[in-house]
Amino acid sequence: MRREIYLRRTDLENGLDAYFRELKKAGFFSDDVENVLTVESLGRVTAMPIYAKRNVPHYTSAAMDGIALRSSSTFGASEASPIVLEKGKDFTFVNTGDPIPDGFDAVLMIEKVRVIDRDKVMIFEPVFPTNDIRPIGEDVTVGEMIVTRYHKIEHYDIPLFLAAGVFEIPVIRKMKALVIPTGDEIVPPNDVISGGKIPETNGSMVKAFLVENDVEADVHSVVADNPERLEKILKRSVETYDMVFTIAGSSAGSKDYTYRVIGKLGKLVVHGMNIKPGKPVILSVMGRKPVIGLPGFPVSLDIVLQKVVKSLILRKYKTFEKIELRTSAVSSVRMSSSISEKEYVRGALAQVDGKVIFSPLKRGAANLISLTRHDALLTIEKGKAVVDEGEKVIVDYNGTDLEKKILVVGSHDILIDVLADLVKTRDHEIVLSSSSVGSMGGIIAISKGYAHLAGTHLFDPETGEYNIPYVKKFMTSYILVNMSYRIQGLMLRKGNPKNIRGLEDLTRDDVIFVNRQKASGTRVLLDYLLRKEGINPSEIKGYCTEEISHMNVAVKVKEGLADAGMGIESAARVMDLDFIPMVKERYDLLVEKSFFESKIFKEIMEILKSEEFKRVAERIGGYDLSKSGTVIKS
Amino acid sequence: MRREIYLRRTDLENGLDAYFRELKKAGFFSDDVENVLTVESLGRVTAMPIYAKRNVPHYTSAAMDGIALRSSSTFGASEASPIVLEKGKDFTFVNTGDPIPDGFDAVLMIEKVRVIDRDKVMIFEPVFPTNDIRPIGEDVTVGEMIVTRYHKIEHYDIPLFLAAGVFEIPVIRKMKALVIPTGDEIVPPNDVISGGKIPETNGSMVKAFLVENDVEADVHSVVADNPERLEKILKRSVETYDMVFTIAGSSAGSKDYTYRVIGKLGKLVVHGMNIKPGKPVILSVMGRKPVIGLPGFPVSLDIVLQKVVKSLILRKYKTFEKIELRTSAVSSVRMSSSISEKEYVRGALAQVDGKVIFSPLKRGAANLISLTRHDALLTIEKGKAVVDEGEKVIVDYNGTDLEKKILVVGSHDILIDVLADLVKTRDHEIVLSSSSVGSMGGIIAISKGYAHLAGTHLFDPETGEYNIPYVKKFMTSYILVNMSYRIQGLMLRKGNPKNIRGLEDLTRDDVIFVNRQKASGTRVLLDYLLRKEGINPSEIKGYCTEEISHMNVAVKVKEGLADAGMGIESAARVMDLDFIPMVKERYDLLVEKSFFESKIFKEIMEILKSEEFKRVAERIGGYDLSKSGTVIKS
Repeated sequence: MRREIYLRRTDLENGLDAYFRELKKAGFFSDDVENVLTVESLGRVTAMPIYAKRNVPHYTSAAMDGIALRSSSTFGASEASPIVLEKGKDFTFVNTGDPIPDGFDAVLMIEKVRVIDRDKVMIFEPVFPTNDIRPIGEDVTVGEMIVTRYHKIEHYDIPLFLAAGVFEIPVIRKMKALVIPTGDEIVPPNDVISGGKIPETNGSMVKAFLVENDVEADVHSVVADNPERLEKILKRSVETYDMVFTIAGSSAGSKDYTYRVIGKLGKLVVHGMNIKPGKPVILSVMGRKPVIGLPGFPVSLDIVLQKVVKSLILRKYKTFEKIELRTSAVSSVRMSSSISEKEYVRGALAQVDGKVIFSPLKRGAANLISLTRHDALLTIEKGKAVVDEGEKVIVDYNGTDLEKKILVVGSHDILIDVLADLVKTRDHEIVLSSSSVGSMGGIIAISKGYAHLAGTHLFDPETGEYNIPYVKKFMTSYILVNMSYRIQGLMLRKGNPKNIRGLEDLTRDDVIFVNRQKASGTRVLLDYLLRKEGINPSEIKGYCTEEISHMNVAVKVKEGLADAGMGIESAARVMDLDFIPMVKERYDLLVEKSFFESKIFKEIMEILKSEEFKRVAERIGGYDLSKSGTVIKS
Repeated sequence: MRREIYLRRTDLENGLDAYFRELKKAGFFSDDVENVLTVESLGRVTAMPIYAKRNVPHYTSAAMDGIALRSSSTFGASEASPIVLEKGKDFTFVNTGDPIPDGFDAVLMIEKVRVIDRDKVMIFEPVFPTNDIRPIGEDVTVGEMIVTRYHKIEHYDIPLFLAAGVFEIPVIRKMKALVIPTGDEIVPPNDVISGGKIPETNGSMVKAFLVENDVEADVHSVVADNPERLEKILKRSVETYDMVFTIAGSSAGSKDYTYRVIGKLGKLVVHGMNIKPGKPVILSVMGRKPVIGLPGFPVSLDIVLQKVVKSLILRKYKTFEKIELRTSAVSSVRMSSSISEKEYVRGALAQVDGKVIFSPLKRGAANLISLTRHDALLTIEKGKAVVDEGEKVIVDYNGTDLEKKILVVGSHDILIDVLADLVKTRDHEIVLSSSSVGSMGGIIAISKGYAHLAGTHLFDPETGEYNIPYVKKFMTSYILVNMSYRIQGLMLRKGNPKNIRGLEDLTRDDVIFVNRQKASGTRVLLDYLLRKEGINPSEIKGYCTEEISHMNVAVKVKEGLADAGMGIESAARVMDLDFIPMVKERYDLLVEKSFFESKIFKEIMEILKSEEFKRVAERIGGYDLSKSGTVIKS
């Protein structure tokens, strides 16, 4: 007769906690890394952040079917006084994705062009520089982080990696497990089975389960009830396998010697759990490896696989089962849509102060980054022309627990990507997703409850203060947290071939400038500096050419499409450009109120103040982190 | 300049309908079958119904830890007058799963036993025959259908197959696809990329997508814009591959010759869809194979993969993406649970007349069939002692669309399994799940709205009528549909070694009978026949031994554990037993009212009246289908 004496019986949650703590101490959860070819990386988990080695796209192209033209030749065009353009001289026909020929700087979509004949077209409106042009590096620029560590690679991530010149990826190494069925009464399943003998069917189930969860598995032949033999096999197998499972013999009966053998060889953390079925389970650690005694009854066994082994694998692989749901959400922007088509819009979903927000990513069929960044898909049915800002929409979500999804908007900085990566080392299920909308755009988004954090670096000339005067216009009370000080200045081609010494050189005839978009902190700063120095913007060639990030400005300079651009030192360094420092500015994070109280924000604060964050920032250069993590509240 | 002239532009839904219709006509959706080893069958889809070749379990065993004993030696035991049993003579200690020694016929759980010393125990209550005994064939009996065709094999299905002696499984053959990237401007991704050249990144994405969806894929080298060459490659590849994809060249521009080549070689069904992104897509049929022109822009491409190619693959593989949800449901029975443990209960979920119902499967850690049959898991938290019938519970569901999940209860018949299998040929997403609760149990379940259908064959001696008098006790209006007439009689061992001629022989000293449970149609019939013939049930040895299905009775006779049992001819035939026919009885399906109006029930009615159903029934034998599908309403 069996009496149940479980040695370390626990509840499921406590047992798992204790076991994972012990495994962590033993070093099991530290990352084992292997490199795989990008084309074979499906389903693997990145072990390190992945950076672009090429700009994507790598050339300036048309974002629409239409005509490429010189914007300067269109000024003054209107319905009343259309302008006729000549093919070759003034324009050329382009399809979406075609490169923009040298000398042209904008595209006008074909719907707005009246074709006169093969060589002449008529246009009825002026076209601004960069209109419907897809700039170099719009998806990612060289040196930019494409994904953080612990990103599970989906089929639609692969083209971006390849386009960005990433042909090999460091991923968490695949584990290999050994499954050892035990018991005198157990015989191979295809034997002729006589009474009292039990066919060995569990090994194949455990193996299939492991394979399904990306673990290779070998099934050992059945080991008869012999403690010495089991001991020998366990000793040997923990050396070659990442995990070892025994089946049966895990309860506390007279024949169940497994826990004694395991207790002798390693550290027995849990023996018996208060779950039914599934009670007889042994969780132990040998060296740095988990050795798990699984129950012999198949239904108990499956519960332990689902509730214990699965968590263990997910934690080791630094991944999670994506949550799939169809949910209603609020659109954070106004979107127009073709009424003759069903339109799919990719976006990022987040839950801000209890409200679910859908933020669309850049549309356009060529935008590779929208594939990698999206975790939600909105379907706009045929016949619907507009989705309003604030309108309720139904979206399909497929991503991390919404409690762990953090949306960062506003002005982008390289350190935001670093933050997104480092937060993974604290909880790999946190997904921090960021999008560039400029400092002012970020403040507005937070004031409306559309995001958790917004990066902002807006200088107010009247008060000489950063950010606060701007935030006050939109919010009566606010929380700002300093991320860093950074050096703003002029980014120049390597070696400074045009010999640019300062802002006054931007008005020279031989200098082409590239600007940032209105309401971005850098643009505000530039305009202030120009005013201070009495420089007329209209005398700067390229003043109207707008890019939406430091990196995009840097790439334009790098590629020789401009001679100078205003931006931060770190971007210049990443892109290996010359740099003239001008101003030390404060870059703060505006924090959504309910998020400020959250556990995840506490993690973010700890990272901001951490040595590791400082180290990475110093390696990049151009940052002063002396006030990182300092809170400013009104 | 490109003008968009799409040849057969459609909406997504219409386009897919038209395309699938055309592919069906061409024979693409007929099943290609291959055999795989059961141990390697994870994730594959059965191509035919799978039948057990062994009884599971294959011997009589203890369902509890305790003592195996002779029930006859316990009669009269009570708290006031306990009985002392002697080891060896009266009892033996058993652990769950141990075989029951010859001569013992019941188990008493250890908690109810007072152990006096190693050789003596005291008991305080009488124990009935078969108490806490797990009979032979409790999970499945030889000849029983384990799963229908089009069942996707999960890791937890594998042990049941193996235990049932099924070592190889016919599954839908894995497809192999060719992916052909096209375009003069496309170069291999790891080339040095110059302006205007585009790295080939789509092929790897499509391949990864296909692999993820269980299709093997080869990626062809890039094919330059050359219609003749594309034509040659397409002609050759449709012969060796199951599906062929071209990438790019699928829109309607001047260079997009793909649709012309495809239109020349095969039947072009769709060219252009009203979806954005994704519009330029070509859906065509060559021979019996799909040839699909995918758009070249990655975001468009991915939409077409998700919305078109995925449906195609699922339909060809006769499978579906399981729906995972946590939902509230009503428990159809009362369940008790240990307050000191968290308990997991597997069950079948169904939506009956808008209400979601959770029907638990047989609990017990050894029940393999509960793994295969379950699609819902209920967690009863520690501290909760009872879940009441009708109580709201939260369950995790993972199965087909609830609209397509049909629950059949009541008396079980082999033809119910046939129905579950044949309904798959009409819509492979329909899952018809059945459980034996006896005729009366079925009527009660329907009257409470706990199931869609219930099989019933209850004879009313007073009126000489079947079913209606019983149904009327519970429901004022009802719908009965005849499934079949069947022959009831005595199942005997092959060759009739005990020379049994009729019911009167059951009282003989050398004859052991095996009975059905109370309130089953067969038990009602037997008791009526015994009364009619004036036979005293107490004179029949084994009258108190109850089994819950025809097949379980048949297996007892087959295994020599009984000499005779009452049951239907088809069960006797499947088990290769002798049979004495006695009564032709009517077996009806009681239909839940709202379900009667449903599309799925119409399909079921068509099957009941179909030639194929008749053919299968005739092959089994013992059925009269002349009234199948006839409706009786009150």
